[in-house]
Amino acid sequence: MYEKIKELSTLYYPDTVKMRRDLHKYAERGWLELRTACIIASELERLGYQVLAGEDIMNKEARMGVPPETILHLNYRRAQKEGANPKYLEKVKMGMSGVAGVLKNGDGPTIALRFDIDALGLIEENSLSHFPYKNGFSSVHLGAMHACGHDGHTAIGLTTARILMDIKENIHGTIKLIFQPAEEGVRGAKCIAESGFLDDVDYILAAHIMPQNSQKYDLYFGMNDSFATTKLDVIYHGVSTHAAESPQFGKNALLSAANCIINLHSIPRNSDGCTRVNVGTVHAGTGRNVVPETAKLEIEVRGVTSELNRYMEIYARDIIQASALMHDTVVEVEEKGKAYALNCDEEFMNQIRQLCEEYLSDLKLPKKNLSPLGGSDDFSYMMERVQAHGGKATYMKLLTPMVSSPHNDSFDFNEKVLEKGPRIFASIVYGLQKEKDNL
Amino acid sequence: MYEKIKELSTLYYPDTVKMRRDLHKYAERGWLELRTACIIASELERLGYQVLAGEDIMNKEARMGVPPETILHLNYRRAQKEGANPKYLEKVKMGMSGVAGVLKNGDGPTIALRFDIDALGLIEENSLSHFPYKNGFSSVHLGAMHACGHDGHTAIGLTTARILMDIKENIHGTIKLIFQPAEEGVRGAKCIAESGFLDDVDYILAAHIMPQNSQKYDLYFGMNDSFATTKLDVIYHGVSTHAAESPQFGKNALLSAANCIINLHSIPRNSDGCTRVNVGTVHAGTGRNVVPETAKLEIEVRGVTSELNRYMEIYARDIIQASALMHDTVVEVEEKGKAYALNCDEEFMNQIRQLCEEYLSDLKLPKKNLSPLGGSDDFSYMMERVQAHGGKATYMKLLTPMVSSPHNDSFDFNEKVLEKGPRIFASIVYGLQKEKDNL
Amino acid sequence: MYEKIKELSTLYYPDTVKMRRDLHKYAERGWLELRTACIIASELERLGYQVLAGEDIMNKEARMGVPPETILHLNYRRAQKEGANPKYLEKVKMGMSGVAGVLKNGDGPTIALRFDIDALGLIEENSLSHFPYKNGFSSVHLGAMHACGHDGHTAIGLTTARILMDIKENIHGTIKLIFQPAEEGVRGAKCIAESGFLDDVDYILAAHIMPQNSQKYDLYFGMNDSFATTKLDVIYHGVSTHAAESPQFGKNALLSAANCIINLHSIPRNSDGCTRVNVGTVHAGTGRNVVPETAKLEIEVRGVTSELNRYMEIYARDIIQASALMHDTVVEVEEKGKAYALNCDEEFMNQIRQLCEEYLSDLKLPKKNLSPLGGSDDFSYMMERVQAHGGKATYMKLLTPMVSSPHNDSFDFNEKVLEKGPRIFASIVYGLQKEKDNL
Amino acid sequence: MYEKIKELSTLYYPDTVKMRRDLHKYAERGWLELRTACIIASELERLGYQVLAGEDIMNKEARMGVPPETILHLNYRRAQKEGANPKYLEKVKMGMSGVAGVLKNGDGPTIALRFDIDALGLIEENSLSHFPYKNGFSSVHLGAMHACGHDGHTAIGLTTARILMDIKENIHGTIKLIFQPAEEGVRGAKCIAESGFLDDVDYILAAHIMPQNSQKYDLYFGMNDSFATTKLDVIYHGVSTHAAESPQFGKNALLSAANCIINLHSIPRNSDGCTRVNVGTVHAGTGRNVVPETAKLEIEVRGVTSELNRYMEIYARDIIQASALMHDTVVEVEEKGKAYALNCDEEFMNQIRQLCEEYLSDLKLPKKNLSPLGGSDDFSYMMERVQAHGGKATYMKLLTPMVSSPHNDSFDFNEKVLEKGPRIFASIVYGLQKEKDNL
Repeated sequence: MYEKIKELSTLYYPDTVKMRRDLHKYAERGWLELRTACIIASELERLGYQVLAGEDIMNKEARMGVPPETILHLNYRRAQKEGANPKYLEKVKMGMSGVAGVLKNGDGPTIALRFDIDALGLIEENSLSHFPYKNGFSSVHLGAMHACGHDGHTAIGLTTARILMDIKENIHGTIKLIFQPAEEGVRGAKCIAESGFLDDVDYILAAHIMPQNSQKYDLYFGMNDSFATTKLDVIYHGVSTHAAESPQFGKNALLSAANCIINLHSIPRNSDGCTRVNVGTVHAGTGRNVVPETAKLEIEVRGVTSELNRYMEIYARDIIQASALMHDTVVEVEEKGKAYALNCDEEFMNQIRQLCEEYLSDLKLPKKNLSPLGGSDDFSYMMERVQAHGGKATYMKLLTPMVSSPHNDSFDFNEKVLEKGPRIFASIVYGLQKEKDNL
Repeated sequence: MYEKIKELSTLYYPDTVKMRRDLHKYAERGWLELRTACIIASELERLGYQVLAGEDIMNKEARMGVPPETILHLNYRRAQKEGANPKYLEKVKMGMSGVAGVLKNGDGPTIALRFDIDALGLIEENSLSHFPYKNGFSSVHLGAMHACGHDGHTAIGLTTARILMDIKENIHGTIKLIFQPAEEGVRGAKCIAESGFLDDVDYILAAHIMPQNSQKYDLYFGMNDSFATTKLDVIYHGVSTHAAESPQFGKNALLSAANCIINLHSIPRNSDGCTRVNVGTVHAGTGRNVVPETAKLEIEVRGVTSELNRYMEIYARDIIQASALMHDTVVEVEEKGKAYALNCDEEFMNQIRQLCEEYLSDLKLPKKNLSPLGGSDDFSYMMERVQAHGGKATYMKLLTPMVSSPHNDSFDFNEKVLEKGPRIFASIVYGLQKEKDNL
Repeated sequence: MYEKIKELSTLYYPDTVKMRRDLHKYAERGWLELRTACIIASELERLGYQVLAGEDIMNKEARMGVPPETILHLNYRRAQKEGANPKYLEKVKMGMSGVAGVLKNGDGPTIALRFDIDALGLIEENSLSHFPYKNGFSSVHLGAMHACGHDGHTAIGLTTARILMDIKENIHGTIKLIFQPAEEGVRGAKCIAESGFLDDVDYILAAHIMPQNSQKYDLYFGMNDSFATTKLDVIYHGVSTHAAESPQFGKNALLSAANCIINLHSIPRNSDGCTRVNVGTVHAGTGRNVVPETAKLEIEVRGVTSELNRYMEIYARDIIQASALMHDTVVEVEEKGKAYALNCDEEFMNQIRQLCEEYLSDLKLPKKNLSPLGGSDDFSYMMERVQAHGGKATYMKLLTPMVSSPHNDSFDFNEKVLEKGPRIFASIVYGLQKEKDNL
Repeated sequence: MYEKIKELSTLYYPDTVKMRRDLHKYAERGWLELRTACIIASELERLGYQVLAGEDIMNKEARMGVPPETILHLNYRRAQKEGANPKYLEKVKMGMSGVAGVLKNGDGPTIALRFDIDALGLIEENSLSHFPYKNGFSSVHLGAMHACGHDGHTAIGLTTARILMDIKENIHGTIKLIFQPAEEGVRGAKCIAESGFLDDVDYILAAHIMPQNSQKYDLYFGMNDSFATTKLDVIYHGVSTHAAESPQFGKNALLSAANCIINLHSIPRNSDGCTRVNVGTVHAGTGRNVVPETAKLEIEVRGVTSELNRYMEIYARDIIQASALMHDTVVEVEEKGKAYALNCDEEFMNQIRQLCEEYLSDLKLPKKNLSPLGGSDDFSYMMERVQAHGGKATYMKLLTPMVSSPHNDSFDFNEKVLEKGPRIFASIVYGLQKEKDNL
């Protein structure tokens, strides 16, 4: 059966590439993946999955970092014009762009796979040296670009769905294929976890495309060294005044912001492990001769454990408040994203390793299970939810040669990974559902 | 003759109001006053003045704070569509929007009057309580608004031109009516002063509409307590990096900026007189999880004397450089505007006072010549140029009831000042050119 | 009688010089002027004044900036050894070093004169070019030096007392000669004002020796441009920790202090008038590798009006608190001194001017009453107290050539002012008490 | 022979305790260990070692953090009074307090042992619950206290010397026993390393007394997680001025310092490993109303590798310079101490482990060689020097129960370690010199 899965991956590979390029061309940013979500939903329906979308799998209140109404509405209209399937568009519009396909197939373990679907806020490079541009599928949505491989993730997910449906006679249990919006900024996973959709899941796994180094392994079975993180938007509100005529009547929001910036960077290092802080953007003031009335900052803190992230967040929030008091301004703080540190199950990774070593032995496999992530991923929310009731979870790396690094406007990856990806996912699901069956 | 001037002011008053409202409706920001400049030029031509524009009266290199080429170009097209007179549009386009009318009328003193013509970057209030909105002449150019009365100044200037042409038989000498662009941000006067256009001027004067307080004086003969000022744009260039994966590879432009902001405000007070500093706007960074690569600041310093402004500017420039060194960034500093402190000639103010007390005795005149300005005005550049060769200069206040304060989106002034203004200007010119004639 | 006063001043001049030099040699800092106070009290007793001291004229609770008990005690012993009169030493010891002489002399106005008696914390220059050193009367108390002329003030006060006693038959009313401790740091006046000792005073005046400029006036009748001021001691208490092993367990008092310092200097300038702020000293931390547990700052704010000082103090207190919150430290704030801005009565100054112009016409008198002080003086507390019930007050300048500027370790003044000073004070008292009498 | 070494350690234990208590009682801080050094030298001489001291083993120019001349001189006189052996006092006085004993004993490896001898700047607790106080050997030098166990290290070193001399017939090679001054502040090792004294050493080792945790191991064979570190003294020199009269004439050293403090703490975290920074003390200014002329800071940076420490040091030095430029002050930077990160040789640790497991099997030995240090030690300088020419080095932990933690005024350790210490050192030397001999 593993051989058959391999054959199907190869057979469907051209379609997977085509799908990935279409998604790449119509890249959509977090919470705005309407065309994308409708394509996924339509395809899952076509394959025979029960399709859930929007409120079916999302707790609306638990979403984070949703764009303003006007942006949501403009994108709704855009997706309409681009021919998004109206049946699903109505369900996923206005920041509800999560989709899942469910296959209930008798007794057996419930396995969830997660694929993230959103693009980044970059303007894609337009030069002939850039493969997507040269081949006509660079983004037509200015300011949205798949520069982190989620187009590939989505295509892998749909081909995985196709293969699993092909072999459904041979497996037993429930399959939940989750297509998650807004992973960038770690905003979208929480609302799916908190919807309860994962509460019967025995195994959850996901994978991220990553650059292959000289050792040319094909995958890692898990990731560590990820950061728990909290994303905060901070707005200082002061009082503007003419800077020459009556400076004393102002309350200078920018002075509060400047204090906040410097002091956030001076939070003491922590001997328990790595921490991070960044003020990524600042926008303040209206004119050169006016004392700035508002200053808006986008901030993030991180820690390699959830405790370290909490240490950073608590300290940061003190500084944010103190900076307001410092120049008598008022501050508004909004949480825009949050993720735990990844915690991959050792036993589960070993289980996958054995399966790969036995049945996918043409792959080049590493000796150790884990490889560092370096950043943050809100798949950690889903993992924690599943682990909370005793389920197993891991987050794998799929390695492939890359041009430029992720989050860069000239990012591109070698598409061969689109053949390997569905094979690995489908093989693991088969291994888990077959095995349980045999017991 | 003073009586005749008064009659003409009254006669032309409806036209003056109409002109002011038209200019108000099509408000144009500094260096972009193309429709405005063409209307002025056409009217001066119609009245019989020699019309000079653009390079005729401006030293192109000495302009400060000119918007980028694309903005200049877009406004050129806009002005074309709005029917700006092509004959003059070609001369004033691309940031050359100064205009002057010259009348050479035999021997006698050369007198220059200056009227500033630009609007501010505000979105005008749209409510029925706002007079311009209610009467249909609020700005149709979103983000440009005459909130400092320069529409009135321009209308007063053109009616003054009309009256002086009417009475030209009775006066002797040369009249230069200067319509200056980009006074806001103190950017436009320097290039006119440095063109040499003022180097034969014996008297130069200007006036600014100001709010009338309870004492209801009609004018002041000069202003003091103005600020010399320097406007700087500062851009810190650093190196961006992923804030979690490798913060040490970044050079944080925002940390340089934050240090700059706080330290600028901590420049020691000076016992020689008032000083000011403001960082009006900051824009930095591209994303929450990226160490900011650039940070742009709009800064101004001021001092009630040119020495005090120099003290502030030198100290500020040290801080700007040190803040770059602090976090190993590179800084670019551009001077965007500059003005001296006003220095009105005592003798000249007394001369005008005598004239007013004798011939304009229906006006309510103050006992002292000077009233504080509070802010800065680059008319100081023209005054200094004229005074450098022994000419006389003053900058008067024209008082009128106002709604809201200047630089506010609900600003409006009582239009009665449009009748008084041309009368005062024309009377002074007549007094000076007649008097000299009689000697 | 004015002539007689002049003669007495000349007659007593050698004694005045001797007294000044003795006080200079045994300079005593604020609240520690025990030998000084006892000499004053003994001399007033000898002359026939009713002597009040310590609690007689001071509200103990209203003293500010009193040194610690141990310092007070050590100085008590020192003064004992130096032979201070035990009768008075017991009254003035332990920070109660104010003395007054009262002469009740029938009906007539109550006039108070104030003389300040404390030295500064400087190490006096020891070189032959320094007059006091060369002439053997430089300070023998290391770290205490009369570098602001209060030795001269005290000597003038005592000779004034002597002259007034000599002419007491010719005047009518009550005289209160107040010798105030701890003027430096503006600490001592408040407690005398709040004791009620001034509540029957009709006229209060004082004078400060000041450098004579090229115009060589002998005095000014009042001072303006003084600063209201508040002196604060601020201590941040944090938690120390080993800076390498566990920085996260510390609460860094020095980071709070550094934020406080920078932000205090960035309090916005005020268009209503001059303001000042200074952090004069900082002492923090115990070792290089320990996160600082405490940081102590000596701070002052000032404003040319009491309102401006209040603006500064309120803003500063916000910053002090916010800086604690910023790094989770606790802050202790203690008020160590306070003074209002001087407010000399115009009418009273004119009265003194007329008297001087008529009877002291050999003096060189200025045309205007007021001359700027530049700094602060807590005599303002006494002035305000007297003015509150309708009394009159002024603070005069006594001009004399000086070597070096005040508050400098090589400071010295020309002693000729010691002849002029008693004459001026006694003449004014005579003029006021005689005149009233005549009415 | 290992058994004999054990017996000698037990036999000499009472003397070792006595020695330790004497050194504890006369604790001497870094570079001032004159009495200590003379006792060591005299004892080494008595035992028959060749005694080297001062310039014999120190490169005078390479010393760091030496106290001022006056302090050195006062301590010289103190040591004289305390009866320090004049023969050696002359060699070690004035900051040259290093001593070594050398035993050349035929062919064989050269082995160096290092013992640090200095005390800390603490005031020892005086209470009956403090063992040294109760037993009459708490420090009689106020402000100097052995709170890091160097008294024990020295006593262990001298008893090791005694045992090795006893068994010299059985070993072959050269022994260098180094008694290093000024380890606290990592100041003393560099000058010994750079003297060349270690350039023929094949093995160098040292040990530090450390608290024993619940597992009760007796020692670790090496330490990791130490910090490379650089200690800097920074003095900002500005210009003082009266803070109210003429703030603009000052150059505020404290504003430079405050900027330096905050920005040092904001040096970005480094993904290559842990870094640290601390400003431990600040002393600035002379009076509340004077703009501070100088500000002195004691700073340290650290990194778990020498590269990370270099990253911190370079960044810190930029900040230090920029902070001077920021407020136009001048800065003086002096390097007061420096250490590399420890790099213990794996092979050498294994060699010692085998020896211990075989011959000292009554000791409780850990499974892994390394245990974290957490702080810094300049023994790293000596290790690097020896490793540079191919020698082996390690820095061991000697574990013993402790009261309170090191660098605390109530620190004390269980003296039983004084029996174990000489045994372990002597056994290792024997093992190495015997073994080599056998080859």
